[in-house]
Amino acid sequence: MEVLIASQAGFCFGVTRALELALAAREPPIYTLGPLVHNPLVINQLKERGIHPVSSVEEIREGSLLIRTHGVPPAIIEEAREKNLRVIDATCPLVKKIHGIVRNLREEGYRVAVIGHSRHPEVQGILGYSGEGSIVIEKEEEAAALPFQKKLGIVVQTTELTENFHKIAIRLLERAEECRIFNTICFATQERQRAALELAMIVDLMIIVGGKNSSNTRKLLEISQETGTTTYLVESAEELERGWFSGKKKIGLTGGASTPDEAIHRVKRMVESFGNTGL
Amino acid sequence: MEVLIASQAGFCFGVTRALELALAAREPPIYTLGPLVHNPLVINQLKERGIHPVSSVEEIREGSLLIRTHGVPPAIIEEAREKNLRVIDATCPLVKKIHGIVRNLREEGYRVAVIGHSRHPEVQGILGYSGEGSIVIEKEEEAAALPFQKKLGIVVQTTELTENFHKIAIRLLERAEECRIFNTICFATQERQRAALELAMIVDLMIIVGGKNSSNTRKLLEISQETGTTTYLVESAEELERGWFSGKKKIGLTGGASTPDEAIHRVKRMVESFGNTGL
Repeated sequence: MEVLIASQAGFCFGVTRALELALAAREPPIYTLGPLVHNPLVINQLKERGIHPVSSVEEIREGSLLIRTHGVPPAIIEEAREKNLRVIDATCPLVKKIHGIVRNLREEGYRVAVIGHSRHPEVQGILGYSGEGSIVIEKEEEAAALPFQKKLGIVVQTTELTENFHKIAIRLLERAEECRIFNTICFATQERQRAALELAMIVDLMIIVGGKNSSNTRKLLEISQETGTTTYLVESAEELERGWFSGKKKIGLTGGASTPDEAIHRVKRMVESFGNTGL
Repeated sequence: MEVLIASQAGFCFGVTRALELALAAREPPIYTLGPLVHNPLVINQLKERGIHPVSSVEEIREGSLLIRTHGVPPAIIEEAREKNLRVIDATCPLVKKIHGIVRNLREEGYRVAVIGHSRHPEVQGILGYSGEGSIVIEKEEEAAALPFQKKLGIVVQTTELTENFHKIAIRLLERAEECRIFNTICFATQERQRAALELAMIVDLMIIVGGKNSSNTRKLLEISQETGTTTYLVESAEELERGWFSGKKKIGLTGGASTPDEAIHRVKRMVESFGNTGL
């Protein structure tokens, strides 16, 4: 049995930077609004270092608030400052750039449309900068149903699928006199998706390693399944089942933006050990 | 035999306006750079009224220069004014709007891309306003091969096919950080194309009436042929051949933006007369 890891897999620049900022902070307690990364293994390691996820600023009495890569609406930062919390901003630089873009668009009289998932924290953060009347568009049909606009300013959730972005953009071109479109899909994410697709097409089975509540990990699952190749999503090597690999010759592996290389390599070793027992 | 005329066919608002301006001009000689409309029948009628096509301002000594619906680069208007010619501007208001859009885009530091045909007079006129370094994109492959741009300002030839516009726009979204896209496809043209498509799908034979050198007429031909329905393009009823209609029950008719209703109705009567002879 051969186990191949996708050419791009695992931690992205933004996540690496956020973890570095978290680990460099010398004065615990440090709080994050939700898990810093969508990966239970990493979260446990962080807890040992005094870095804890909470669900709102209200829960924090003292210490630091570390803003996750997804970013937050400006109101959250104000709230933390009013409570005299130290704010460590680990917003992904690309997401930070989107905040600036939508603020400008709003100032220049554009109605802002965010292509992405309305409940995703990244989109929630962007909406904090794009102002009232902003629209979130997740599906082609929603774009087609939009009332005609004069000036539409469009940004894209960094982890959106390129294909979905294109489908929605085309619909929006028919719903406005002017569409000012910023392609803000993260290049690293796009490359990871492309690498997953390429790998899925040549293997007998794909394993995606990552948090089950991670948006970019679930998109890798979706992309892989669309090729027709059987695909499993696991958070760690312990979830692997011997039976999956019976009769399979080539196994593909990849991981989401918040999956440490270590987790991917543990899965690789475990899969290889199944192969060695002759199953 | 049943002859059906497309729900939208023939003269558009811009052409009607240009002809009215031409006929209202009381002091011939009036010159146009190229035929006022791409329809030989109309051109002959105009010649009788002292309105003549020429190929450049150089050929004109005195009288008026009537700017066609396609518009011209500003240098042509300057040249005419320097020669003390009277300028009658029959540029289609939508094309005029595009001139303003590309001038603004240039002033705001955008590289201008025109989706359309580089040799078409409308595109040539637009390029006169969009400045040096502007690009004309006719095909998807050209868009995909474009070097990466920071700020791309995009307009569309008014008679471009929506499908082609979409294909090219998607490629451009991957070739620039920001794409500011103005959907400048003429609504009347789009409706005429849609009506031609719908009709072509339900008839046994389509006849397109219009000038063979008219861009929008040729696009109607293309759209109709793509449905798989046999289609002929004629400039006048005289070109019809009895044999085409043998065994056909439903005949569809449409005409380009520069085709007078009269020409379409003459074709209809002629086709019906073939039907009456039992062929």
